[in-house]
Parts: sequence; structure tokens; C-alpha cells
Amino acid sequence: MYIEGKNAIREAFENNLTINKVMVDKSYQGRKDEIINLAVAHKVKFEFVPRVVLDKKSKTGHHQGYIAESVDFNYSSIEDIMKKSQEKGKKAFIVLLDGIEDPHNFGAIIRSCECAGVDGIIIPKNRACQVNETVIRTSTGAIANMPIAKVTNLKDAISYLKDNGVFVFACEANGKEIYSQNLNIDVALIIGSEGFGVKKSIIEHCDGVLALPLNGKVNSLNASVACGIVVFEVVRQRLN
Amino acid sequence: MYIEGKNAIREAFENNLTINKVMVDKSYQGRKDEIINLAVAHKVKFEFVPRVVLDKKSKTGHHQGYIAESVDFNYSSIEDIMKKSQEKGKKAFIVLLDGIEDPHNFGAIIRSCECAGVDGIIIPKNRACQVNETVIRTSTGAIANMPIAKVTNLKDAISYLKDNGVFVFACEANGKEIYSQNLNIDVALIIGSEGFGVKKSIIEHCDGVLALPLNGKVNSLNASVACGIVVFEVVRQRLN
Repeated sequence: MYIEGKNAIREAFENNLTINKVMVDKSYQGRKDEIINLAVAHKVKFEFVPRVVLDKKSKTGHHQGYIAESVDFNYSSIEDIMKKSQEKGKKAFIVLLDGIEDPHNFGAIIRSCECAGVDGIIIPKNRACQVNETVIRTSTGAIANMPIAKVTNLKDAISYLKDNGVFVFACEANGKEIYSQNLNIDVALIIGSEGFGVKKSIIEHCDGVLALPLNGKVNSLNASVACGIVVFEVVRQRLN
Repeated sequence: MYIEGKNAIREAFENNLTINKVMVDKSYQGRKDEIINLAVAHKVKFEFVPRVVLDKKSKTGHHQGYIAESVDFNYSSIEDIMKKSQEKGKKAFIVLLDGIEDPHNFGAIIRSCECAGVDGIIIPKNRACQVNETVIRTSTGAIANMPIAKVTNLKDAISYLKDNGVFVFACEANGKEIYSQNLNIDVALIIGSEGFGVKKSIIEHCDGVLALPLNGKVNSLNASVACGIVVFEVVRQRLN
């Protein structure tokens, strides 16, 4: 996986993502350079290459003279997430994403979940955004602290969580008002996709549906904002 | 102001933005066309033009054969927002943005504020994102129901609000935990910019600083997510 541009590479270093190699525009050779200094400090190999090589490798078109080669994102398993959650000695706090497609939303969700102290995020293998460069960049480093599991079937994941004593709620319009639900229990929240929300077939497997009270005319929240609000409602209820 | 692309124009119609004219790719002439049907239904003039004309006018490069000419966004005044808020007969609920620069964040904030029933949004004239096509598109129509005032000086706006009995809080790290603050009062919340938060010079003019409890290592929320969480805390406290 490539990480492109000065800021993204700096953040990757700061958040201890495993970087194999940094390629730097040849014309920068000899000057004082923050990224090269970081590579040296982290004992990561760097090499100077002609700009055309970077242009060719670049997917974003905004490499600014720097491309880092990182190992592919290391997914966790749902069992790992459950185990680590139990080891924390706190109530479980898991988020499932039912088909989030926009990498900016996915990245922002990882960021919010990290801030809220979520144990891990579960995403489906198909028809959903996977961890990619945009997700990593948008998560502003939070991804380094957030286990993410990729599952073939969200329904099986829900069954697994329920078998382990976790209450699973879909966050959707027309549900029970979230503020009236006790969330100071082992809990998993499902956030739906940008266009379609949580699928009916998934809702059927849940312990309930929770909704935010909406007061407007348009009344549709961005998926990452909705996720932020519901995970912080869990945070609020668990204070003290 | 131009609105480009099928979806954006459809949403503009659905949300009753004032559209003067729709330009449609000449080669679409004669076929059944959703956008033309909408223009007819809303009694808006449409004209067929060669694709090169659209290409030339397009700022996004993604016009898909459709560009609508809309009147410039009609800003409200802070007095208007205050007046309408008082007419509602509910506690005031105002959001100030201290230098939000990203149009996607601004659009998402408008969307969240609309869902939460915010009375109006106040932004500074300078060094901040103004209402543009991207903001309108990202707000998914919510902007049609959300008064936005543009002020020369945020400090004067804060003084005006305080003079009208509104309590003004900056939302920033290291503040009082927001959940312990009674927000069932006339309230205005200030959301800071993506990079720098709420400016010190602004904080000094506020009645207090409110913070979300953050449990992670990275601990920085996206500005639009943070806004969503705090405005829904107001919603929660005002229920019943």
C-alpha cells in the first residue's frame, strides 16, 4: 500500500504504521528534509528516485515528491476484538458498519470511535469500503489504535456477539429513542450505509433499533456524524 | 451561482432553491429527461446548449450534461436569526463557526444543525468557508431550511447574543465536561476550525468552554462530527 504526500507520511510515522521504504524526489537530494529525517529516526530505508517514477506510482496525483511503501493494513478478527474487549475489564463497546462506501466517512468513523474508546470496528468483506490510503489519511492516525475486523457475513458476526453476551442495536430512523436505552451494558451498534441505512435483513437479527430524535425538515445525518453522536451517547452514559 | 450535475440539481429543486435557468446538453434533446421534467414542473426555463458550452462554464468538471443557474445564496442577519428564534417560543439554539475552512465540513454541519433544530448559523466574513456549490451539495438540501448569517466580527456577534440573554460557549478541549452543563437555556455553541479550534481571543468573550470527554490516544474529532455530537447533546437535554 502506498502513502502519498508529506502530511500523510508524517502521520504514518507518528502513528507507528509499518513503513518499508520511502521514495523521495531525486531533486530534493542534499537538502534538509523532514520526511528523510523521520525515515532515519525510524530506521526506515529511503531512496531518491526521478519524479517521473513517483508520478507513475502515484494514485492520488498529489505525492508532493514523497511516496511511502507501507505494509497492507493488518485486519483483526472478531474473536480478537472480543477478547481484547474482555481483557479491558470494561463493558464491551463495538461498532459494526453495514456497507459504508465513502472512504472519508469510514476514516472519520474510525477517528470518532477511537476518541470514544470503542473496542473495535467490524466491516463486511463485500460491498463496503475497505481500509485504503484515503481511509488511513482521513482517520488522522486513529487507525493505528483501532482494531478492524473484516467478516464475510455481518449476520454471523451479530450471532457471535450475541452468543458472547453483547446486545446488538441497529441505529436507524423509526427506532426507539436512543436516549431512553441503557447503553451501560455490553453493546454493539450498527451504523448503516450512506444511501440505504441498515439493511432490513440485518435489523431482524438485532436486539433492537435505536434512533436519534430529528427536528428538521431534511432530517438525514451524514453517516460519520450519526456514528459520532451515537458512540458519544454511550460515552455519556458510562461516565462516573 | 452554478449547480452542476443531475443529483445536485434534483436536490436543488426538491429543496426549493431559486433556480433561474437550467442548461442541458443539446444531444439530450428529444429524450425523456428527469431534469427537464423537474424544470417544467417548477416553471423554470431550460435551454439546450452544445456540450462545449457546459464544459466551459463547469467549475467541477462533473456537470454530466446539466448546469443550473441559481441565485446567490441569501444570507440572513444575526438580528433575523435572533428574531426568528424568539418567535419560535423555544429556548434559543445558535451555532457559531470560528473559521471552518472545508466546504464538506461546513455542508455536513449545516445538515446536522438542521436535524437538531438549530435556529441559525453564524460565520465570519473572512478566513472561513462561505456558502458555495460544494457546501450546498454536501448539505443535501438542509441549507434551504437553515438561516446563515455572515458577520465581520465574531466577537461583536457574541456580544450581541449575550446582550440578548444567550449564553455563549466555546466547544474546545480542556473545557468543562459538556454533559455537566445545563443546555436547556438560551444557548449558542462555537465550533472551532479544523486545524486550530476556537481562537483564544474568541474564548475570552465566551461564558465558558465545554469539552467532550475523549478516551483515545489520537483524540481529535472531525469538526463536523464534533459539531454533530454537541448539538445533539442540546437536543437530548431539551427532550420532554
